[in-house]
Amino acid sequence: MPALTAETSYAPPTLADIQAAHEIVKQAAIRTPLVHAPKLSELTGADIFVKYENMQVTNSFKDRGASVKLSALAKAGGTHGVIAMSAGNHAQSVAYHARRVGLPATIIMPEGTPFVKVARTKSHGARVVLEGDTLIECRPAVDRIMADEGLTLVHPYDDPLVMAGQGTIGIELMEDMADLDALVIPIGGGGLISGITLAAKAVKPDIKIYGVETKLYPSMHAAVNGYPPAFGGDTLAEGIAVKTVANTAIDIVRKSIEDILLVSEDAIEAAVYAYLVEQKTLAEGAGAAPLAALLEYPNVFQGQRVGLILCGGNIDPRVLSSIAVRALEREDRIISLRVTIRDRPGVLGLIASLVGRHGGNIIEVSHHRLHLNVPATAATLDVTFEARDAAHGDAIVETIRDEGMPVMRLPAISGH
Amino acid sequence: MPALTAETSYAPPTLADIQAAHEIVKQAAIRTPLVHAPKLSELTGADIFVKYENMQVTNSFKDRGASVKLSALAKAGGTHGVIAMSAGNHAQSVAYHARRVGLPATIIMPEGTPFVKVARTKSHGARVVLEGDTLIECRPAVDRIMADEGLTLVHPYDDPLVMAGQGTIGIELMEDMADLDALVIPIGGGGLISGITLAAKAVKPDIKIYGVETKLYPSMHAAVNGYPPAFGGDTLAEGIAVKTVANTAIDIVRKSIEDILLVSEDAIEAAVYAYLVEQKTLAEGAGAAPLAALLEYPNVFQGQRVGLILCGGNIDPRVLSSIAVRALEREDRIISLRVTIRDRPGVLGLIASLVGRHGGNIIEVSHHRLHLNVPATAATLDVTFEARDAAHGDAIVETIRDEGMPVMRLPAISGH
Repeated sequence: MPALTAETSYAPPTLADIQAAHEIVKQAAIRTPLVHAPKLSELTGADIFVKYENMQVTNSFKDRGASVKLSALAKAGGTHGVIAMSAGNHAQSVAYHARRVGLPATIIMPEGTPFVKVARTKSHGARVVLEGDTLIECRPAVDRIMADEGLTLVHPYDDPLVMAGQGTIGIELMEDMADLDALVIPIGGGGLISGITLAAKAVKPDIKIYGVETKLYPSMHAAVNGYPPAFGGDTLAEGIAVKTVANTAIDIVRKSIEDILLVSEDAIEAAVYAYLVEQKTLAEGAGAAPLAALLEYPNVFQGQRVGLILCGGNIDPRVLSSIAVRALEREDRIISLRVTIRDRPGVLGLIASLVGRHGGNIIEVSHHRLHLNVPATAATLDVTFEARDAAHGDAIVETIRDEGMPVMRLPAISGH
Repeated sequence: MPALTAETSYAPPTLADIQAAHEIVKQAAIRTPLVHAPKLSELTGADIFVKYENMQVTNSFKDRGASVKLSALAKAGGTHGVIAMSAGNHAQSVAYHARRVGLPATIIMPEGTPFVKVARTKSHGARVVLEGDTLIECRPAVDRIMADEGLTLVHPYDDPLVMAGQGTIGIELMEDMADLDALVIPIGGGGLISGITLAAKAVKPDIKIYGVETKLYPSMHAAVNGYPPAFGGDTLAEGIAVKTVANTAIDIVRKSIEDILLVSEDAIEAAVYAYLVEQKTLAEGAGAAPLAALLEYPNVFQGQRVGLILCGGNIDPRVLSSIAVRALEREDRIISLRVTIRDRPGVLGLIASLVGRHGGNIIEVSHHRLHLNVPATAATLDVTFEARDAAHGDAIVETIRDEGMPVMRLPAISGH
């Protein structure tokens, strides 16, 4: 039984191992499409093809490794059940595939895990135990229950069968389109990039592989380059915010990949938005990290045929909504104004009518009478409205100024 | 040159015509994937496969018909250029494929067309003329410019080459998975359903075809059943809010399809949301209409293998954002409260701390001192916060009540 730490070492899976894993994955998971993305290509200057792992049953590539590992455990027999520790994609994949092979699953999650994730994990028939404030604090519960009940741990990445499962993406990519020049792959614990690299390089040794981490969690970059990493901060790419990478993965990455690109939070947010508006698909932060790398380092990929692994789509709808509205604000399609008005009846009506008559859509209004920088007989009115574009918004602002009212543009609201 | 009215009649394309169209589409458009959708299947009780036309270059199936029509015009020669009238997907497809074949394109759009649509159409090299308040009011400009400049009209649906182009979806569906029991297809002017029906039934005569219209625009339903339709209201499915369907399409639909299902706006909104959260893809209202039909009429499709045509993904990010937040409100993940407080320092801090300490995330606060139903020394505080789920929200409300403050739940905010 592997320990929870990422200190184990084992022979990496061979191409034959990954092919065997693919026979299981074919039955247990979705054959995700690889599709040309013309608009993303135009945006980045590379010729982009997207591998849609967000179409898996539980909406991430984790279904592949989990299906292979769970099938092997069920076939070997003698297991009382499996246990996993995760607040994210791994939890749902283990729960789903454990039920598929008929093994009871126990998933340990932090107490603050959003209900929807708990509910989805339970909906696959798993027992969910909420414990501690963070994943680290779940650890004692995992050890205790594992020992008490004789369960088998399913590690999210530090396991040769899991690595072989993730590697089946490489087999499919080479089947669908062997003439890709480069693959760009997110790095969390290292299972995904290791598996794909082993499979793809076995078929096409000269394919270039790039890994992507967030600047806030450069674990693999630090391990490969031999410096002590500094971690920290909230990242949109929580799926790859991993502090400990697998030793076996370090060896594979050091030997076989071109480079690890570190991406900023701004680039990840821009990539999630580009997937949404240009490609009409949902990428979680980790899933958008490869596109973020092309946005942040376009010169590396100019003119090349590049496969991006969109590894998962489990982004909170509210976060997505916030990203979309922030982008609209940046494009000046949502405009906030402060108008100084005489505090008497009819003024709000006048302004609202002006905005409406010119095609602006008011979404928020507030009156203020206590601002000291206006006369006591005046008030300020904050108006937020939607315009078709920046020029349209400017024109509306001018119509208010033309009525003799002082107008100040306010910084964009956010978070709505 | 076809007239703008939908009164023309012509022999519908044959399977050979559609196969010839497919040779052009293969070069000019994306071979979109057909992918199994396990979660949508669970949601509806049917076995669902999605055809992702939102992955086309301009993010709708219109690229197929436009590419075939424009290629034919270019090959025939003698055309000075093309003209089309559209505020939507047809505009972008004609612009894109006209440039591809080297023909100048003029697109007439209503004056209030959102900038992003104008910009996207221009970005494909088209001349855009803004005229009139609605599409109907564009009509004189189309006639005038067409006559003055000797341009050729590209009709969005009432054209045999366009119909053959849309029919290539049927060829691909039958190549990918001939054992589908049924197809569910949006109906706007009738080009899409006609083309697909001709192709699919030629390969598999017993496949069942269902059309979908919104209850607000039942044009084909009325034409086939012989009643005068009542139109009206704002629909989320503006792409199929068409008042005049093609005569040739009426014949095909009357002869070959099982039924036309009329869907409510609520079902369309639920379908857009289900595509977003379960399938991680963006469907515009018209694109989500087939899934809406399965949600509204689940008994029709129980246990069948059903192909849904996700015909387009061009939904405004702000509309999408609004749909997502409305869904969160319905799930009680965004909660609004009115708390009656004593109007003195520290009370807001107390409430905010209570909410925060229990894991609620405050997103809006407002104070009111003028409500007459509270004592003059009291005030009301409206607080909107995000909870993990309904039970979590209830628990937070109770902690505020436990401090002795009266709390009233407010109806959900919306539109943010």
